[in-house]
Amino acid sequence: MICIFVTGGTFDKTYDEIRGQLSFGETHLPEMLRLGRSRVEVSIERLMMIDSLDMTERDRALIVRRCAECSGSRIVITHGTDTMVETAAAIAHEVAGKTIVLTGAMIPYAFGSSDGLFNLGSALAFAQTLPHGTWVAMNGRCFRWDDVRKNRASGVFEECGG
Amino acid sequence: MICIFVTGGTFDKTYDEIRGQLSFGETHLPEMLRLGRSRVEVSIERLMMIDSLDMTERDRALIVRRCAECSGSRIVITHGTDTMVETAAAIAHEVAGKTIVLTGAMIPYAFGSSDGLFNLGSALAFAQTLPHGTWVAMNGRCFRWDDVRKNRASGVFEECGG
Amino acid sequence: MICIFVTGGTFDKTYDEIRGQLSFGETHLPEMLRLGRSRVEVSIERLMMIDSLDMTERDRALIVRRCAECSGSRIVITHGTDTMVETAAAIAHEVAGKTIVLTGAMIPYAFGSSDGLFNLGSALAFAQTLPHGTWVAMNGRCFRWDDVRKNRASGVFEECGG
Amino acid sequence: MICIFVTGGTFDKTYDEIRGQLSFGETHLPEMLRLGRSRVEVSIERLMMIDSLDMTERDRALIVRRCAECSGSRIVITHGTDTMVETAAAIAHEVAGKTIVLTGAMIPYAFGSSDGLFNLGSALAFAQTLPHGTWVAMNGRCFRWDDVRKNRASGVFEECGG
Repeated sequence: MICIFVTGGTFDKTYDEIRGQLSFGETHLPEMLRLGRSRVEVSIERLMMIDSLDMTERDRALIVRRCAECSGSRIVITHGTDTMVETAAAIAHEVAGKTIVLTGAMIPYAFGSSDGLFNLGSALAFAQTLPHGTWVAMNGRCFRWDDVRKNRASGVFEECGG
Repeated sequence: MICIFVTGGTFDKTYDEIRGQLSFGETHLPEMLRLGRSRVEVSIERLMMIDSLDMTERDRALIVRRCAECSGSRIVITHGTDTMVETAAAIAHEVAGKTIVLTGAMIPYAFGSSDGLFNLGSALAFAQTLPHGTWVAMNGRCFRWDDVRKNRASGVFEECGG
Repeated sequence: MICIFVTGGTFDKTYDEIRGQLSFGETHLPEMLRLGRSRVEVSIERLMMIDSLDMTERDRALIVRRCAECSGSRIVITHGTDTMVETAAAIAHEVAGKTIVLTGAMIPYAFGSSDGLFNLGSALAFAQTLPHGTWVAMNGRCFRWDDVRKNRASGVFEECGG
Repeated sequence: MICIFVTGGTFDKTYDEIRGQLSFGETHLPEMLRLGRSRVEVSIERLMMIDSLDMTERDRALIVRRCAECSGSRIVITHGTDTMVETAAAIAHEVAGKTIVLTGAMIPYAFGSSDGLFNLGSALAFAQTLPHGTWVAMNGRCFRWDDVRKNRASGVFEECGG
C-alpha cells in the first residue's frame, strides 16, 4: 500500500474558463490512476491544493507530520516543482524509516500535453523499489533529496554538481 | 544508459485513416520521451513493428539476441501485451546479468486516453532500480517473469497465484 | 431545433482494449456537444451504430424514413464516410422541404487527433443556414448531394468535376 | 477564399512551463485547420496576439482597417471573448458589403478539452453561408453583432433580450 499525499502544484492546475485564469479544483490523481490502469494499492489524501511558491512553513509542517503519522512505509507526494526540493529537505530531516518520493509536473495534467502521467508512473515505481530515504522523481530520473535542484532556466531537475 | 527495444504492440498502433484500420507506422517512443521531459539517457532501437500475436520464434530469438548483445545492463522492451509473458520467459532463459523490463499498453498511445505514458514512466523507473532479472511492468506494478500472466477477461496483469 | 440522427461511422468508433479491435459503443455526440459548449437546441436519436460499408438498403430506408417523419426541418446525420454520398442521394430522392446535412470523420473522435469536432461544428452551422436540400459537410466545406464524391486515395471530399 | 485574422484571445493562449503562466506564442490556427482536414481556401494573417481585455482603440482600428482593406468578402476573426462584441460593433459601423464572423474559445485550444475546434468549424461554415454583415459565432450558434452579449456568469453568448 502506497500513501499518496496531494499538495497541488502545476500537476493539478486547471483552467477556470469563467475567469480566464489558472486555478485549482479537484485533484486529478484518481483519474490519472484510472487512465494508467494502475493496480497499485494506494490511499489518496489531499493535504492542500496550492502553488508551491505559496507554501508556508505551516503547510510544510503538515506534510512532514502526515508522512510521519501514516502507517505505510511507502509514500508518494505530488508537489509544485518550484519548492519541491525544500519540502523534500524538511521531510528528510524529520522522517526516517520510510521511502518517500516527491513528484510533480511542468505542464498541468488537464492541459493535454502534460508530463504528469509519465512522472506519476515513475514515482509509483520508484516508491516501490527504492530504499528508505527521501527522493525527488522528475524527468524519468530519481534524485536524493540532498543532491538535486530545479534548473529554473531549463525547467529540468539535475544533480547539484550537474 | 538504458537500451530501449521497440517491438510494436498496441503501444505503437496507429489509425490508418485512408483504410479505416489499425496499423503500424513509426514508433511513438521519441515523442513520448519528449512529452515526459525524460532526461534518462537512452538508446532506442526498433527491432520489429508487429502485433505480439503475430510474433514468431524467429522474432523472439532476435529480441533475445539483442538483449544479450547490447552493451548496457539495463533494458526496456515495448511489446504487445498478449504474448509479453512468453517473450519474457524466452529472455530469462537465455540472458543473465541484466535488468530487463518489458512493458506495453492496453490502449494505443496515439488514441489519447492511453496508459502508455504511465507504463513507460514506470518501466524506465523499474529498469533503473530493480536487480538483474527479467520483469514485466504493467498497471504500475512489476512482476517477475515466472509469476505473471495477463488476465484476458479483464486486461489486467496479475501474479499466477493471484 | 435540429434533429441529429446518429448512424455510426468512423466518427463514433472506439477501441476495444480487451479484444484489441475497433468497435462501436455509445455515441460520443452528447460529449462532443458539451465540449463545444453548444447551445444549439438539438434532439439526438441513434438510428444504428455501424460502419457505413456495412449499411444495407434496409438501414438506408430507415434513415430516409426518420428524415421524412421528424417534425423539424433542419437535420444533421453523422455517417461513415465511405457511403455517405449514397445515403445523401437516397434521402434527396425521397425527402423535400428540409435542410439535411450529412457529416462524419476520418479519425474517430475518441482517438484524440480527430476531425470530428471541427466537422460537427461546421455541420450544425450549415444546417442552420443552408436552404432546403441534402448536403454533405466535410473538410470545412459543404457540397450538394449530387456534386460530391469521396476521393478514396486522399480521403478528401470534392466536387465530381473537381 | 476566406481571410482569417488572428487577434489572440483564449483561443490561442498557451502554457509557459518555465514561468508557470498563461502566455501567447504562435497561433494554433494552421494546426487546427490541419486537424480538421479543412479544404476551405484561406489566408491567415496575425494582426496581434493579445488578451481581448487589453485591446486598445488603436488595436480595434487596425482590425477594422484590415477588414475594409482585404480583397475577399468573407472574413473570420479569432478574438478573445470578453470584448468580442465591442469589436464586432466597431467593424459593423465601418465595414459594409462583407460577411464577417468573429469567434473564439472559452478554453485554450492547447489545453485539450477546448471548444476552439468546434467554434472554428462553425465560424468557417457561417462565413461561407451568411449574408453580408458582422456576426458573432459562439456555442454553435450565430448572432447579429447588435443582438448578442457574453453572459459573464455562465460564459455563454446569448441574445440581448435572452
